[in-house]
Amino acid sequence: MQLSNKFSASNLSHNTIQTNSSTAVSKQSQSADLDLTADKMTEECGVFGIYNPEAGTEAAEMTYLGLIALQHRGQESAGICANNQGQFNIHKGMGLVENVFSQETIAGLAGEMAIGHVRYSTSGSSKLANAQPILINSIKGDLALAHNGNLANAAELRHNLENNGSIFHSTLDTEVIAHLVARSFEDNIIEALVQSLHQLKGGFSLLAMVKDSLVAIRDPRGFRPLALGKLGSAYVVASESCAFDIIGAEFIRNVEPGEMIIIDQDGLTSSKYSSESKTSLCVFEYIYFARPDSNIDGQNVLLARKEMGKQLAREMDVEADLVVPVPDSGIAAALGFAEESGIPYAQGILRNRYMGRTFIQPTQQIRDLKVRLKLSPIKEIIAGKRIILIDDSIVRGTTSKQIIARIKEAGASEVHVAISSPPVKYPCYFGLDTSRRKELIASSNTVAEIGKTIGADSLHYLSQRGMLAAIKINHDLGFCQACFDGDYPISDRYLNEEE
Amino acid sequence: MQLSNKFSASNLSHNTIQTNSSTAVSKQSQSADLDLTADKMTEECGVFGIYNPEAGTEAAEMTYLGLIALQHRGQESAGICANNQGQFNIHKGMGLVENVFSQETIAGLAGEMAIGHVRYSTSGSSKLANAQPILINSIKGDLALAHNGNLANAAELRHNLENNGSIFHSTLDTEVIAHLVARSFEDNIIEALVQSLHQLKGGFSLLAMVKDSLVAIRDPRGFRPLALGKLGSAYVVASESCAFDIIGAEFIRNVEPGEMIIIDQDGLTSSKYSSESKTSLCVFEYIYFARPDSNIDGQNVLLARKEMGKQLAREMDVEADLVVPVPDSGIAAALGFAEESGIPYAQGILRNRYMGRTFIQPTQQIRDLKVRLKLSPIKEIIAGKRIILIDDSIVRGTTSKQIIARIKEAGASEVHVAISSPPVKYPCYFGLDTSRRKELIASSNTVAEIGKTIGADSLHYLSQRGMLAAIKINHDLGFCQACFDGDYPISDRYLNEEE
Amino acid sequence: MQLSNKFSASNLSHNTIQTNSSTAVSKQSQSADLDLTADKMTEECGVFGIYNPEAGTEAAEMTYLGLIALQHRGQESAGICANNQGQFNIHKGMGLVENVFSQETIAGLAGEMAIGHVRYSTSGSSKLANAQPILINSIKGDLALAHNGNLANAAELRHNLENNGSIFHSTLDTEVIAHLVARSFEDNIIEALVQSLHQLKGGFSLLAMVKDSLVAIRDPRGFRPLALGKLGSAYVVASESCAFDIIGAEFIRNVEPGEMIIIDQDGLTSSKYSSESKTSLCVFEYIYFARPDSNIDGQNVLLARKEMGKQLAREMDVEADLVVPVPDSGIAAALGFAEESGIPYAQGILRNRYMGRTFIQPTQQIRDLKVRLKLSPIKEIIAGKRIILIDDSIVRGTTSKQIIARIKEAGASEVHVAISSPPVKYPCYFGLDTSRRKELIASSNTVAEIGKTIGADSLHYLSQRGMLAAIKINHDLGFCQACFDGDYPISDRYLNEEE
Amino acid sequence: MQLSNKFSASNLSHNTIQTNSSTAVSKQSQSADLDLTADKMTEECGVFGIYNPEAGTEAAEMTYLGLIALQHRGQESAGICANNQGQFNIHKGMGLVENVFSQETIAGLAGEMAIGHVRYSTSGSSKLANAQPILINSIKGDLALAHNGNLANAAELRHNLENNGSIFHSTLDTEVIAHLVARSFEDNIIEALVQSLHQLKGGFSLLAMVKDSLVAIRDPRGFRPLALGKLGSAYVVASESCAFDIIGAEFIRNVEPGEMIIIDQDGLTSSKYSSESKTSLCVFEYIYFARPDSNIDGQNVLLARKEMGKQLAREMDVEADLVVPVPDSGIAAALGFAEESGIPYAQGILRNRYMGRTFIQPTQQIRDLKVRLKLSPIKEIIAGKRIILIDDSIVRGTTSKQIIARIKEAGASEVHVAISSPPVKYPCYFGLDTSRRKELIASSNTVAEIGKTIGADSLHYLSQRGMLAAIKINHDLGFCQACFDGDYPISDRYLNEEE
Repeated sequence: MQLSNKFSASNLSHNTIQTNSSTAVSKQSQSADLDLTADKMTEECGVFGIYNPEAGTEAAEMTYLGLIALQHRGQESAGICANNQGQFNIHKGMGLVENVFSQETIAGLAGEMAIGHVRYSTSGSSKLANAQPILINSIKGDLALAHNGNLANAAELRHNLENNGSIFHSTLDTEVIAHLVARSFEDNIIEALVQSLHQLKGGFSLLAMVKDSLVAIRDPRGFRPLALGKLGSAYVVASESCAFDIIGAEFIRNVEPGEMIIIDQDGLTSSKYSSESKTSLCVFEYIYFARPDSNIDGQNVLLARKEMGKQLAREMDVEADLVVPVPDSGIAAALGFAEESGIPYAQGILRNRYMGRTFIQPTQQIRDLKVRLKLSPIKEIIAGKRIILIDDSIVRGTTSKQIIARIKEAGASEVHVAISSPPVKYPCYFGLDTSRRKELIASSNTVAEIGKTIGADSLHYLSQRGMLAAIKINHDLGFCQACFDGDYPISDRYLNEEE
Repeated sequence: MQLSNKFSASNLSHNTIQTNSSTAVSKQSQSADLDLTADKMTEECGVFGIYNPEAGTEAAEMTYLGLIALQHRGQESAGICANNQGQFNIHKGMGLVENVFSQETIAGLAGEMAIGHVRYSTSGSSKLANAQPILINSIKGDLALAHNGNLANAAELRHNLENNGSIFHSTLDTEVIAHLVARSFEDNIIEALVQSLHQLKGGFSLLAMVKDSLVAIRDPRGFRPLALGKLGSAYVVASESCAFDIIGAEFIRNVEPGEMIIIDQDGLTSSKYSSESKTSLCVFEYIYFARPDSNIDGQNVLLARKEMGKQLAREMDVEADLVVPVPDSGIAAALGFAEESGIPYAQGILRNRYMGRTFIQPTQQIRDLKVRLKLSPIKEIIAGKRIILIDDSIVRGTTSKQIIARIKEAGASEVHVAISSPPVKYPCYFGLDTSRRKELIASSNTVAEIGKTIGADSLHYLSQRGMLAAIKINHDLGFCQACFDGDYPISDRYLNEEE
Repeated sequence: MQLSNKFSASNLSHNTIQTNSSTAVSKQSQSADLDLTADKMTEECGVFGIYNPEAGTEAAEMTYLGLIALQHRGQESAGICANNQGQFNIHKGMGLVENVFSQETIAGLAGEMAIGHVRYSTSGSSKLANAQPILINSIKGDLALAHNGNLANAAELRHNLENNGSIFHSTLDTEVIAHLVARSFEDNIIEALVQSLHQLKGGFSLLAMVKDSLVAIRDPRGFRPLALGKLGSAYVVASESCAFDIIGAEFIRNVEPGEMIIIDQDGLTSSKYSSESKTSLCVFEYIYFARPDSNIDGQNVLLARKEMGKQLAREMDVEADLVVPVPDSGIAAALGFAEESGIPYAQGILRNRYMGRTFIQPTQQIRDLKVRLKLSPIKEIIAGKRIILIDDSIVRGTTSKQIIARIKEAGASEVHVAISSPPVKYPCYFGLDTSRRKELIASSNTVAEIGKTIGADSLHYLSQRGMLAAIKINHDLGFCQACFDGDYPISDRYLNEEE
Repeated sequence: MQLSNKFSASNLSHNTIQTNSSTAVSKQSQSADLDLTADKMTEECGVFGIYNPEAGTEAAEMTYLGLIALQHRGQESAGICANNQGQFNIHKGMGLVENVFSQETIAGLAGEMAIGHVRYSTSGSSKLANAQPILINSIKGDLALAHNGNLANAAELRHNLENNGSIFHSTLDTEVIAHLVARSFEDNIIEALVQSLHQLKGGFSLLAMVKDSLVAIRDPRGFRPLALGKLGSAYVVASESCAFDIIGAEFIRNVEPGEMIIIDQDGLTSSKYSSESKTSLCVFEYIYFARPDSNIDGQNVLLARKEMGKQLAREMDVEADLVVPVPDSGIAAALGFAEESGIPYAQGILRNRYMGRTFIQPTQQIRDLKVRLKLSPIKEIIAGKRIILIDDSIVRGTTSKQIIARIKEAGASEVHVAISSPPVKYPCYFGLDTSRRKELIASSNTVAEIGKTIGADSLHYLSQRGMLAAIKINHDLGFCQACFDGDYPISDRYLNEEE
């Protein structure tokens, strides 16, 4: 199809710049090579913003620390845009926050307001041009945008804008929003932004910074989290509350689905720009994405995970000697499982601290090198034991297979795999990495087949109902669980178009 | 004024990226630090293009070599965009051509067509976002543009475009052209480009590359040079003919003012898109910018310079022992002067080969360090002699002053300065660096005053008439000599707006 | 004293090279900035060697992987020397193994034998010249050495050698050994090496590589571990057995104290070069240094740590609601403690995965930034609870203080600190970082005073006897416990000289 | 032979470090890629030293500038060692002076004394370990050495030292001197240095820096130049006097062959350590190596070159239209030739200013790319003319051949080549690059054959007698002219051993 051709041309047209950038990345950000997470669902972004008019010009420093705390939400690129009395300065780069910024670059970002962004992306579109925030100098004023989520109708909107002469410089949905604002007949830039929101379908947590205010917007369904905090007289907004702790800020409340908060010299103004009443918070935030110490929409993530482990124990009936987590993703659920089942918890597998990267290619001799680099089973603990191996999810199954093989090699007599979430069968269109959906092992295999493929003596998944029960201890929001049941909270039209 | 505020915001908004880039530059491109040329008029760009359908995929290699030959026209950034069967790949970077490109990046630019660009710019807007070529993915197809020159009405056009919702990512005039093309109601991209040309005022030599053809355009007045060559079955276009020699191509003819040449599988198609009859070739190309081995609009540059030296000798009446050039800019004129006057030519000042850069700050002890790094007077030659010191021009006069002081220190009994062009009194709006116009020493001082300021025993300039006579040996084009006489070949409206 | 002046001059004389290198380090190896471990005892080295005559030329690749597995033993510099049919090639650099080596550098190290080294060091002597292995071209043949440990009489030997005209290029003990070999009247290089061993006092695990053989030597007292493994027909030697797992090699046995193993084409030859019968294995290998999955002298490290936790529980009498480890150092002991005491184990503090480095200076607002970057208490778990906080050791106490403060801030009603080893009161002379001995909080404070200083409601240390009982489950070696009781296994003469 | 095997092993043993360094070089120092000089004799070193006790701590800054002025004597590596009240600091790196040093590294070299070095070397031994100065911490005190020249008996001395247990870390002759000093029974370090001098055969200009003094030594025959200057109360020493001009220092006199000058708080003390009466100054310093503005042993270099051109004109009898130099090496002689012969001088070939490097491989299409990158014949000047092409020397002849071909391509009717020195027939053992001696075209071809090979219509060399006459205008030293006549001023024993 022509449209997709054009987009691929767009990607290709920058590929040597991209090559450059990714070289830089591979040298700088060794910690970013998360071999094992290649077999996990992956988040696309984290955002942070601060409005700090009285506390001097350290908004960018605070944003830098906040982004470090949100680093788990994206390791590909990072950026901060600061606003110094109406003058906007921006710095972006490929790699981890700590590599992108130096003392000098932060010093160059003095200002009383700032927004920042960390980004994950599949390798195809990994390039500096796609780093956020984006900054535009429109006739309506300067506008910086940082965005976590995915617009279902981005391609349609982009096509219309290009037909009318707009020129795009990235493949970001965020740039679509920027062009809608620039094209609006509304002169006031915040009004133009509100008008634009009504044209967007999908999930987004969006921070916008204009001359004299910071704006935080969450999509009507609340797909992605967004939290509001306070640090002295300053307001902060972040994808997760863990970003508040690091700067000593206090969590106030979550930004609500469909809410727009404007922060300026008059303080905080909240309004609802949508009358949508159903919510669709991504359930995977609790399962894997969010940091365990975050509190999302009223529920601590670690406790939710531990509760999923307990629930899983209630649903299972396996005799075993030890409950062993896949570190770090399975630890919380394993502790819950052990507590509920009474089967002893053991550190049967260690996660190696310094194991980042290697260029050594797997050979016949050491086929499972990446797993060996990251995880070490402890023979003295495992040998001769019946193990319940706990993990949070299985996406492709390849890593699980290697881990199980290594555990058996270490002498485990039985390996029963217990997953603290249901089978992932459907791709995600609202902010997760969907590039490997054909590789979702549960999309075309039964649980028994998966268990056989990965070499488990038995395989167990938490029920969807059990999962919800575990999460909903403290609140009663609706969730998007489409990756488990295919029930997408948005029209099919956009889902197809996305392919 | 609001407009200029917005533009300055635009510059500022990128300044940390710019800081980054310029750091990289200062490390990489030591040769680019031409201390002494800080006191010369400076060019803004060089362009090169090749259409090479039969000779395989080496268009980018040829462009790379062509840009090396054009390096004197711009050392700030370099870029190449290649077209491989309709797929566009681009690579750009800050610094010298030889630093921006590596074997890998050139290998990633395989293709049968390519355009390239080298750029000079005042430090203020020196940043990667302003590197050329620019590549856009419009609904009309991919379009790459490389441009040498300055549009007098760029600010006006940009204002109108932004008012209608266009978003700019650089401060380049080239991006204005791109937006005009994207906005055109004309679907055919070349037709849209032609429509856009009619809206442009000022000087430009423009290369455009689309899916299946290469387009070379020179502005109606011919402010900037543009030459056409042939390499086997391939056509090449370049700012100067010296870029042909390096790849073994043959000079055919100059692209004429107001001409558009389309090169595609049917060969070369020429058309005139303007009926302008007066030409305004920049006279400084002959005086300083162009490479001495280039042939511009029918005249070899070195011979023109030598002839200016002869003419200067005819106009002057000074007794002296030696004619000594400021190397390298004064050599050609000095040889001509010596030949005509009969006064012996001598290498009384040496240009030091490895002297690039230093971070050492001038102190009381060595105040004229930059001149010392670059130039060494030879006492054994100079001592006790009456010297005629030849240079091509004086812009600010600060370097001249230090050179003269060093020559006197070396024992010269008299130093008579002879300049092979008239006094530069007016700023340029058509492609030269105009940022230092207030610093033009001749704008507010008489020749006698300048001579006194720089410490010369006498100071002589070539007459404007003599200069024209020297250049016009082989052709009869009209020149832009506005920097000498203030007679700008364009409406005052744009000149004022530029300020 | 004059001698130490000379040594400090030696350090100073290279300090710009050092400055350079450390700059490179700070850019490359963000993971190496282990803020919290600044408050831990630190190891100085890890070694790895392989003799692989049949398996082609991949010795360096295996060594590279082995060094990655030993990275916890040293993050300052890394190096590999390979032997390709008698030709020695070496590559060393500052930083983590994964940053020091690239595919190209490893490809340049083809060979059938290799030895490698990772190094930790206090900042003062951190420089490339001190990276290992060292390679010398003596008249007796090429010799490469990699060494883990500290010679007590290094200064004395060095003084004598310099007096006789030897020139040193590093401050390494290893270079002292090299000079002893070069000076020996014995022509055979291995014989010369054996002669040299008899002059050494202190702890060392030493790998030597000559033209046709690999030599592994452990000091007579066995201060530092050294393990022997097999990979097909190849032999491997490493500081810890965890380096075998990563390449799929099999652990055979430990190199014994006072043993020299020569590996060449005739296989493995073992000999005892010392008749020392007492052993002094460093007890801190079990407490903190070694990787939990290593097996040292017959005892798995993780199980030893868990047993220390159990023993600690037996020795203590505190009522509490939760056992919470300081991650990662306290986890194993905390699990043992919880199991023995019946008090529930909880992940009350999280270790943040991506938190490496920051240049932000602690301010009034966020004084405990480094702890905040690394550790996050979970309020929902901790609030209102009486906590037993488990860690492996306290060196200076500053980090403990901040951790306890954060836990109380998170709402813990009581914090009882339990340390799974005795108080560290005396400096180490045999391979650990001794630079901060005056900062050892237990050297001048009672347990009660320490508890008060760090803000604990009570503080408990494991008894020395309990510690030994926990470790000695599987073997009966003698240990060096001098850091706890000051009973150094070597003459006072050297201990004083060291100061 | 075994000895040479060992040395080659020594080179090989560091080759990955070397690979690294040279990569860095190729990125940084584009100006250092002097394609055309590949066909010139090449110098090995330049040295600079300053003793500046009253003028504060800027000795390293002055040395940095001095090394920039001496850059033509070596572009491979650079280094400075400074002495700050007896504390020695050193910084060395691969590449050009301006790339090796930054403001920070120079700031780290504060001190009242400093010595510096620039080095050229054939690619084989190009590595950081061979950069100078070298700094050793001997029992006699710290000693820094910087050395220009070649010891004929270096291999013999090194062999003896290694036999007695010395360990070498480089392949430098300078390190041999350092070991001789360290081994001396003499405790006073300067006395030890004098003793060592008596063991050296060959050419050297040596700077030594100890705790409280700077020592300048020239070998008994004076193979390499060494000049003494004064800057206020400070003394400076440098390979060439051009290094004085850049810092505003005044030339005093040359260091004499066999002289040792000690500069300390008591001023300057001169002594003769040798009674050798014959001198052997390298004649190529005048022909090509030295900078034209230097004054060596009483003779200005540029004037000597111009005089060689005049002498050449007197010896030749060719009719021609133009005298054209190969820039820059032939310019001075060509001006002399034109003046003497009356044939007009013309800039018929231009040297391109920005042409540094390229990775493009010569193809059928552009075989002479390197010449094209550097030199451009000007058709308008050359076409139809009989040219006398002047250069200073021919080593291999390959570049000459390409230049002549390009001139003929540009339309010259005849090309007569005139070389302002005799044919180079014999290798050099005293400080010049001897690696290509088999490639000396004149060693196995007659002048007629060479002329035919390079495509000249006729070829002329200056006579040896004419050359001497041209140089000896101002002094009467003896010269080493062995490269012309094979009459080496040193025993054959060393010449053979060198092979």
